[in-house]
Amino acid sequence: MRSFFTPSSIAVIGASTDQRKVGWMILNNIIGSGFSGKIYPVNPKGGMICGIKAETSVDVLEDVPELAVMALKADLVTDEMEKLGKKGVKAVIVISAGFKEESPEGCELENKLKEISNKYKIRVVGPNCFGLINTHWNLNTTFSSLFPPSGGISLCSQSGAVGATMLDWSIHTNSGVSKFVSLGNKMDINEADAIEYFAKDDDTSVIGVYSEGISDGERFIEAVSKLKKPIVMLKAGRSAAGSRAASSHTGALAGSDSIYDAVFDRLNVIRVKDMDSMFDALSVIASSKPMLKEGVAVISNAGGLGVMAADACSDNYGISLASLSPDTENRIRKEIPSVASTHNPVDVRGDATNDMIIDSLKIIADDESIGGSTVLASPLDAIDLCSIASAISEMKERLSIPITVSFPGGTNCEKAVSVLRRNGVPSYPSPDRAIRALSYLRMARTGRKPFENVMLPRESGRARVLELLNIAKNEFRSSLSEEEGKSILSAYGIPVPGEVLVTRAYDAVQAAEKIGYPVVMKIMSPDIAHKTDIGGVMLNIRTPEAVRESFETLIHRCASAVPDAKIDGVSVQKMASGQEVILSMIRDDQFGPVLAFGLGGIYVEIIGEISRSLIPMSDDEMDRMIMSTKAYRMLSGARGKPPADIDSLKDIMRRMMKIALENPEIYELEINPVMVGKKNEGSWAVDALTTIR
Amino acid sequence: MRSFFTPSSIAVIGASTDQRKVGWMILNNIIGSGFSGKIYPVNPKGGMICGIKAETSVDVLEDVPELAVMALKADLVTDEMEKLGKKGVKAVIVISAGFKEESPEGCELENKLKEISNKYKIRVVGPNCFGLINTHWNLNTTFSSLFPPSGGISLCSQSGAVGATMLDWSIHTNSGVSKFVSLGNKMDINEADAIEYFAKDDDTSVIGVYSEGISDGERFIEAVSKLKKPIVMLKAGRSAAGSRAASSHTGALAGSDSIYDAVFDRLNVIRVKDMDSMFDALSVIASSKPMLKEGVAVISNAGGLGVMAADACSDNYGISLASLSPDTENRIRKEIPSVASTHNPVDVRGDATNDMIIDSLKIIADDESIGGSTVLASPLDAIDLCSIASAISEMKERLSIPITVSFPGGTNCEKAVSVLRRNGVPSYPSPDRAIRALSYLRMARTGRKPFENVMLPRESGRARVLELLNIAKNEFRSSLSEEEGKSILSAYGIPVPGEVLVTRAYDAVQAAEKIGYPVVMKIMSPDIAHKTDIGGVMLNIRTPEAVRESFETLIHRCASAVPDAKIDGVSVQKMASGQEVILSMIRDDQFGPVLAFGLGGIYVEIIGEISRSLIPMSDDEMDRMIMSTKAYRMLSGARGKPPADIDSLKDIMRRMMKIALENPEIYELEINPVMVGKKNEGSWAVDALTTIR
Repeated sequence: MRSFFTPSSIAVIGASTDQRKVGWMILNNIIGSGFSGKIYPVNPKGGMICGIKAETSVDVLEDVPELAVMALKADLVTDEMEKLGKKGVKAVIVISAGFKEESPEGCELENKLKEISNKYKIRVVGPNCFGLINTHWNLNTTFSSLFPPSGGISLCSQSGAVGATMLDWSIHTNSGVSKFVSLGNKMDINEADAIEYFAKDDDTSVIGVYSEGISDGERFIEAVSKLKKPIVMLKAGRSAAGSRAASSHTGALAGSDSIYDAVFDRLNVIRVKDMDSMFDALSVIASSKPMLKEGVAVISNAGGLGVMAADACSDNYGISLASLSPDTENRIRKEIPSVASTHNPVDVRGDATNDMIIDSLKIIADDESIGGSTVLASPLDAIDLCSIASAISEMKERLSIPITVSFPGGTNCEKAVSVLRRNGVPSYPSPDRAIRALSYLRMARTGRKPFENVMLPRESGRARVLELLNIAKNEFRSSLSEEEGKSILSAYGIPVPGEVLVTRAYDAVQAAEKIGYPVVMKIMSPDIAHKTDIGGVMLNIRTPEAVRESFETLIHRCASAVPDAKIDGVSVQKMASGQEVILSMIRDDQFGPVLAFGLGGIYVEIIGEISRSLIPMSDDEMDRMIMSTKAYRMLSGARGKPPADIDSLKDIMRRMMKIALENPEIYELEINPVMVGKKNEGSWAVDALTTIR
Repeated sequence: MRSFFTPSSIAVIGASTDQRKVGWMILNNIIGSGFSGKIYPVNPKGGMICGIKAETSVDVLEDVPELAVMALKADLVTDEMEKLGKKGVKAVIVISAGFKEESPEGCELENKLKEISNKYKIRVVGPNCFGLINTHWNLNTTFSSLFPPSGGISLCSQSGAVGATMLDWSIHTNSGVSKFVSLGNKMDINEADAIEYFAKDDDTSVIGVYSEGISDGERFIEAVSKLKKPIVMLKAGRSAAGSRAASSHTGALAGSDSIYDAVFDRLNVIRVKDMDSMFDALSVIASSKPMLKEGVAVISNAGGLGVMAADACSDNYGISLASLSPDTENRIRKEIPSVASTHNPVDVRGDATNDMIIDSLKIIADDESIGGSTVLASPLDAIDLCSIASAISEMKERLSIPITVSFPGGTNCEKAVSVLRRNGVPSYPSPDRAIRALSYLRMARTGRKPFENVMLPRESGRARVLELLNIAKNEFRSSLSEEEGKSILSAYGIPVPGEVLVTRAYDAVQAAEKIGYPVVMKIMSPDIAHKTDIGGVMLNIRTPEAVRESFETLIHRCASAVPDAKIDGVSVQKMASGQEVILSMIRDDQFGPVLAFGLGGIYVEIIGEISRSLIPMSDDEMDRMIMSTKAYRMLSGARGKPPADIDSLKDIMRRMMKIALENPEIYELEINPVMVGKKNEGSWAVDALTTIR
């Protein structure tokens, strides 16, 4: 990646004298940004372009350029790539569109391009991209004149147009950018490459990514796992409609959005839903001290703005309105009018002077319990927003806590906001956004140790799986039967209720006595698919007499409902009791195996809440997953019920993870339900649905 | 209210020559806004103020001013109010702070002020307020120089500082304002008065209210019920922390926030959570055509922005991404490059020209299925945002659908945004806000008929209620027993399971035979409070033998557990079966009786979902309330269960409403559970908890 961001020389293939053409714009921008290395315009016609002598072909260049930028029609790109390969160029940005995103022919062209670049070991950004920028290298290879101020934010955008929007924002708000790259079709270089490079880049302090779908989930997870910097992502296509729109314009198929939530949650990626939030998060993280505690103190000259900020503290995760210490309140009391409130949110009132706001802020910064502060002011005549802005700007470095500001309104606030902006003080048009910014800052602090302390059980049922896969393969099946699935669970040490097939009432009683009451009895017949429809399942049988009676009843019911049915016998099975939950493992195409957990039984339909997580999970992560769901309220003993055996549930989860990691051939494995017994009574897998591939 | 907004003459009590004082600012603003009526500055020192001769006292004014504005210290206000009363002034704005919001003494002062104004029938805005504005009367009685452009938005703010923010916004964004009033402590005039006045005001097309708590809920409901204009409200203090902050700075106690949700929902008030949303909603409603259908069409030159807009359509209530007709798609196809997408969101691509965007917009406006459109553009070099802005501004009036715009970014978009702003085209800094604005527009259209078609049952149990109230009163009780509560339910025709108290096993069997099996049997003893603890409740008894046995068992258990207990006998009761739901009526201090409904039993703790609604409700509203809950999925037959008897549930709801409306002494009445039987099998009130006052 170094050759892309800090090249010593650049060739522009398709450089043009026509100022309306991308080939001219890019060359002009490389020159205009102050790039100090060698520049080679290449155009079959030769001549002078932007004051530099153009070469007629890559072949005749005197040196091997470190980076090449292609701005040609799509159908010319492959030939030129071949030439670059022969020349020995190892880094190429393909600006040109007309590939995968456009048509099946374009897709073929892209495959060909990939082949050539693989052959010559050329790394490629694009095609169908907007170029890249390194402000610390005076480098702009985009075809836009937008060149941001220099700073610590590095940006990566799948979409060029969204990238342009980001650049425009950074210029407007004076938010310093380090690197920018537009990835386009991500034929070769993708988000993971960019993140890995930004991770090592000393000039990058925070990373912002716009993506419509991660194409190589495992590499993405690896890159972010190792990252020691905050990362903010806008992953669009959250909804079905959005996802359709995304795949229609990039040709990429995005995975299920709920998986992204699980991935981002695990990797501590700050997920934002819209551009405003992206910008708010990036600017506050880039310009602020870390927020070491969750307590927020609010100072305002307008009670109403304080109320809105208090509401926003309740809305946002990870922060809360702090209680000021009595000492802090006493000290503030001396600075503000006797009628003003020293409670948080501190309301210095509409007739407050600048000094009252600034003095209160200083006092608050000394309070040990405060993690960050928000200053709000309404454009009233008693204060001068501009000098408050100057005072905050001046204090910013000396205070130990981060500060966000909101002067909501319009014309009267603009000047003050521009003072703040110039000085890198994050400010927002409304109190709730100033508070939300603090919550981003708080999220940016949390460490990232995604796959630590994961202890999986030793038992392996791999041999049994291979055996069953072999049988299924011979029978051309893509799924296993319930019995087969359960035998895998058993092999991995997951408790499955005992089950015996009998053909005589006497044997049924013997079986029940051995298994232990209560039992469930089911008719077993290849001719009866839906047992319950004919009353072929009897639950909660508690005595030998009842077992005997049930046996006869089942045989009778079967005989009268389906007279010709071949009867294999009756299955006698332990009746598991407890809370029904669902555990399910599925392999996401992008991110690999995911474990899903939620309430089972009728609750699924009513509550519809399923929590998903990447695996493996540590013990803490399993706890967090279980406790984040409504199922937990049920399991921990709602309404006087005894608490359930969560430890045994976690044991089953660990064994499910082992199955997922050891058997890539198992595509999906769902246990619905797991019956979670009372504390110390264990949990049981009552059903198993297994899909293989 | 007319005297406040269109006075022919104004006295300024406390007018001052000191430019730092509110008394100077207000006078100066009244003069500066171009007010054409007579102005009387009043100051004990007399002299000239702002070029007008000041009178030394109200007493000596030659005429009776139609409106007086007081800008005095709090302790002088009551004396001056007395003088104004004697003079015959009927409308007074009290700017002065130092009343209820400040201290117990201030509260007393406010009570005194109220007394005086009542005596003279003076209507009062304030105290502790910011003044008011009528742009159509050249009137500014605030102490701020913020004077908005003239237009159709009327604003009402409890907080003066938030009001100032609103004015500043309207100036900055060129959003025309008709009236503005800051209500302060709302001693007399409150939101309901303002809304009633705005309702009749021809210059007002949309109303925006900032409030921290409605003080007279019934009048508020009445005022909004009659309103034929859209109303947007920011009710702050949504959270516990916010609510505390609100009450500490206004001295007002806000009701439960969930009740506000119910009230706003019923009255079709567009509730917003923050200032940004308030401004977005007001500006789009004030400047746009109505949105007659829910389908949204998006046009962008950036696929990514289109994806975000599609996501936002899924996030927002009442709108959706439309499917374009084949005809529309064909027509668009002719205007845009062959590789661009004609599906919604229409992506004209980064190299699109202005014409492609504008032509597509025209075609979309012709599509019958489209209710509104959003145009998105990224600042790419191929287009000129300013001329797109001009073209949209020009077309706006001719198109049949409303349009919102977002040119996200910064510097490059600013000029274009100011063109849109000048022409009243609503534009937003991000795609999701442009989409959300359309959802506000859609909400603004829904009619408001809150209490129509309400048919309540004829049966009245008022006599029984009075009887029980009398008994409870004599016993100094504030609640009724379960039996008393049930007898009220019975009197109003709500089915309560039959119950008979017996002292012999024989009688128990007779009772059970009469009631019908299965039955529940309970020991009845004044000495046993918790029957279940001693096994004193037996469920699901199905035969005469079992009744006889249970009778003996209960007597035996009671005798062995509490040997000295006085036994009244055994209660035999119908065992109701079905889905458990909760129905509860509570009287909100602000808004009167509210009906709450949710799943009962163990679901309450797991789901915790309760839906609330003002009563009475029409049949449609009951349906809407039931169907908005997760309980509905249960009642309508989840997981193969038979559908429940929702008609009988609604019948109980109607009778609950009747009880609430006929018996103001009943403060709270909860039935937990109502057992809702299978279709056509009825519903039963199994318990009753009644609080009186």
